[in-house]
Amino acid sequence: MSDASRGRGEIVMPQATRQFGKLFLVPAPLDFGCDEDIDLKQVMPIGTLCAAANITHWICENAKTTRAYLKRIDACTPLKVSIQTQTIVELPRQVHKKGDHLGGFDAKPLLTPALEGQDLGLVSEAGMPAVADPGSSVVRAAHELGIQVIPLVGPVSLLLALASSGLNGQNFAFVGYLPQDPQDRARRIKELEQIALKSGQTQLFIETPYRNAALWSSLIQTLLPGSRIAFSSGLTLTKAVNQSGTAQQWRKLPSGKMPEGLNNQTPAVFAIGI
Amino acid sequence: MSDASRGRGEIVMPQATRQFGKLFLVPAPLDFGCDEDIDLKQVMPIGTLCAAANITHWICENAKTTRAYLKRIDACTPLKVSIQTQTIVELPRQVHKKGDHLGGFDAKPLLTPALEGQDLGLVSEAGMPAVADPGSSVVRAAHELGIQVIPLVGPVSLLLALASSGLNGQNFAFVGYLPQDPQDRARRIKELEQIALKSGQTQLFIETPYRNAALWSSLIQTLLPGSRIAFSSGLTLTKAVNQSGTAQQWRKLPSGKMPEGLNNQTPAVFAIGI
Repeated sequence: MSDASRGRGEIVMPQATRQFGKLFLVPAPLDFGCDEDIDLKQVMPIGTLCAAANITHWICENAKTTRAYLKRIDACTPLKVSIQTQTIVELPRQVHKKGDHLGGFDAKPLLTPALEGQDLGLVSEAGMPAVADPGSSVVRAAHELGIQVIPLVGPVSLLLALASSGLNGQNFAFVGYLPQDPQDRARRIKELEQIALKSGQTQLFIETPYRNAALWSSLIQTLLPGSRIAFSSGLTLTKAVNQSGTAQQWRKLPSGKMPEGLNNQTPAVFAIGI
Repeated sequence: MSDASRGRGEIVMPQATRQFGKLFLVPAPLDFGCDEDIDLKQVMPIGTLCAAANITHWICENAKTTRAYLKRIDACTPLKVSIQTQTIVELPRQVHKKGDHLGGFDAKPLLTPALEGQDLGLVSEAGMPAVADPGSSVVRAAHELGIQVIPLVGPVSLLLALASSGLNGQNFAFVGYLPQDPQDRARRIKELEQIALKSGQTQLFIETPYRNAALWSSLIQTLLPGSRIAFSSGLTLTKAVNQSGTAQQWRKLPSGKMPEGLNNQTPAVFAIGI
């Protein structure tokens, strides 16, 4: 945040914001890119669906999938205005690629509708926006402009994964993706294991589709026998799976075989810890 | 996990578990100990409420508040059996005090009903069990016994706080409570700031009621001017508040004054980052 952009660099208090629209953080179901569409009402509170149905201006990763999501919301709770008349703006590529905090992206212009009194929705492809997904630059800009930020309740794959891992949930970190180069990846796994051993902090990370097998194999080969490895995939879906065991136990699977329920192409969350 | 306790120390595969009950991780609303009771349906998906209403055996932190929660669920979705006939077991004190991972607690005996075919619910006082709350020893024991673990969707204060902080959500850690001793606390804050500066990892922590003012003052005095401090309190409630700014900006508040919306006694989540 530059002080110049804020005038005197003072914190804008909520009472100054009443004439502004609000920025709603709208979670999305976890079935994106999966074979099934789950019933929204099963995983989204009616409060979230109603709030989303009232929004007419959106900031998203992908306008096409946002329209598809709005269609699903409309089937549960009629939208205030038709999908065709919604204003939907995509985050620029630089944010997708480099992340909000490296791209040097100024999201303030995206928030103009809120300054003019319109509520805005920030949505990602799956789960909570700005958590393991782009969007924090938009939230930061909202704070800078004195626009109220309202996070709505919905599924968050990382937290469902952590809760179901059986690993320490009172001290944990999410570190994003591991390096793709095999040697760098093994080095990073050892580094994360050392943090877990030293502090008890569970280390969560994710992998892109078609890389689960390589990551799994590296985890099994690299970690100490007593370290625990948990994974989950498709949580909240009918094909949900989560398992947890020590590296020593996982090594008893036939060589090169992933555990049942973990396949190479489905997005998965991994956790290692003590 | 000891191999002896598992027989041959092999991973129990899900297909072996079909005759067992399941362990449901049941989130609770974030209004515990607050002045208001929010409408459950606003913050809990109907899928979660229905799953909870079908459970007859519970593991919890506090039986009394669990019964109160069940009464609220019953008002939304009738319980399968009356509250009086529910089996409710509390986690032992050692888990509350030392945490699941230091207490050396074996939760397997608590899971006997699941081995006999009954579904079990694990619930904490607020938010997701086993996340910033006790319960991971129960989840771990379920994996060891081959009992399927089903996390349900609901509010999680940490993730709502992170999403609404405007800080990096693609690399973050939750580190629990900071030390109470002023010097130790300042040292820990510097340490967390160094991690954030070095790796970009947002650091989240919580404070117990009646300590927010001391923590706030320490953050303001200790952090570098450009470091960001965000806090949130009462998210999902009518008195929800979240704000974010640099230490330099926060220092412009009158000396010793906390930001509007943050009071000394309400549970709050703090985040620092770059």
